[in-house]
Amino acid sequence: MKTLSILIGLVISANIFAQDQQIIKGEIVDLTHSFSEESVYWVTAKEFQLEEVASGLTDAGFYYSANNFTTAEHGGTHIDAPIHFAENKQSVDLIPLENLIGTGVKINVQDKALKNPDYLISIEDINNWESKNGMIPMESIILFQTGYGKFYPEAKKYLGTDKRGSDAVKELHFPGLSVEAANWLIGKRNIKAVGLDTASIDHGQSKDFATHVALMTQNVPAFENVANLDNLPEKGFQIIALPMKIKGGSGGPLRIIAIK
Amino acid sequence: MKTLSILIGLVISANIFAQDQQIIKGEIVDLTHSFSEESVYWVTAKEFQLEEVASGLTDAGFYYSANNFTTAEHGGTHIDAPIHFAENKQSVDLIPLENLIGTGVKINVQDKALKNPDYLISIEDINNWESKNGMIPMESIILFQTGYGKFYPEAKKYLGTDKRGSDAVKELHFPGLSVEAANWLIGKRNIKAVGLDTASIDHGQSKDFATHVALMTQNVPAFENVANLDNLPEKGFQIIALPMKIKGGSGGPLRIIAIK
Repeated sequence: MKTLSILIGLVISANIFAQDQQIIKGEIVDLTHSFSEESVYWVTAKEFQLEEVASGLTDAGFYYSANNFTTAEHGGTHIDAPIHFAENKQSVDLIPLENLIGTGVKINVQDKALKNPDYLISIEDINNWESKNGMIPMESIILFQTGYGKFYPEAKKYLGTDKRGSDAVKELHFPGLSVEAANWLIGKRNIKAVGLDTASIDHGQSKDFATHVALMTQNVPAFENVANLDNLPEKGFQIIALPMKIKGGSGGPLRIIAIK
Repeated sequence: MKTLSILIGLVISANIFAQDQQIIKGEIVDLTHSFSEESVYWVTAKEFQLEEVASGLTDAGFYYSANNFTTAEHGGTHIDAPIHFAENKQSVDLIPLENLIGTGVKINVQDKALKNPDYLISIEDINNWESKNGMIPMESIILFQTGYGKFYPEAKKYLGTDKRGSDAVKELHFPGLSVEAANWLIGKRNIKAVGLDTASIDHGQSKDFATHVALMTQNVPAFENVANLDNLPEKGFQIIALPMKIKGGSGGPLRIIAIK
């Protein structure tokens, strides 16, 4: 009984101690590409532009630098809010933060996808992950590593074309998530969000954007142009994905990190 | 010994269990104002503008909405990166994420500041907090509640003027952090970052921006136009502040949340 009391005492002390300490522990991995004039944008979208307003010593004697910028909501590492492809669904400012923070899972399909730029991630790919790692926890955030992230921002390899404009759309070749796998993840695992290391959750050759529509009709957002997936394990990490809070926005710049 | 073994067993089981569960627990508080044409910007800065690109049913049969936007880096809820006021210090993309995530402290000075729009937060205000709550943990993130957050985005009450342009600068009246208190927090408590519910960490009437210079010379970033500080306790919460990752940026839109 004495041992029991001492041990309970130790456990309680540890908990009290924990309240004063960093609760968020672990290595932080930045899964975000920086925004610059090199950032990858959809071939028809307005690209990121920085305009210098000030840079240097002021008359008052202090140093000062500041810029303006212009961008499409959808470019670089960004989020697609449900309203991007589903009428009356959540705009980016209304996505519950609980859906953007949670247990992460990485499904690596690069062995197949790097051989086939039109590759569609399948239910079988998800089943293979579960055979090895156990069931995907309910309400997880699922990240797909296609391997194309390593080509960013080289458009020719990353998107399949370095042309721009509406004529370039038909030349887009990069992997994406099949609509069947998207529906399976929503129906069977009640996922919070999905992300991947390509420019779109639908593959480059998609004409109907069926995966976007399937996800977003169910208020599931998508993270696109996610960086550094190489640095994540298959499981055992948390995702924190905080988008710019644009009122009524269909998406926007995203800072996404993992704690592993 | 048997009791010991069982208890050690229980503790180990609990830890393993924890790895599969949500590590980030607690209520999420969004400390971010949404960006819109109402967002508060410095009187000389380019304001937020959203341009609709698409909104409605496409010829292909699916719904689609998307926008472009233009903004100054410094407006709405945003971060000042050290390079904003200190040459060769960190730009926003280079601020270590460890400095933007950590134990939060809220120092409420609204009783004094609401009576005096030129109020300067003092070392005494910090000492008062510590007398009541104990020492500020080293490497904390300090948020000051001036009470002016409740006026956002009403410029006349929030900034002291609803005029715009360089002539309006002299009419800015809102509280800020004194340079003495900033230096004390850096020197004595090795703070990671500071934030507040006004448009600038220097008070409205500042001419030399000495608090910005003091902080940023030491690579301490500042969060401005922080929202919802009413919803935080004085201590016992964590801050996660993730800015848009603008290469070389002097600051940018910030999504800042607390876990309490």
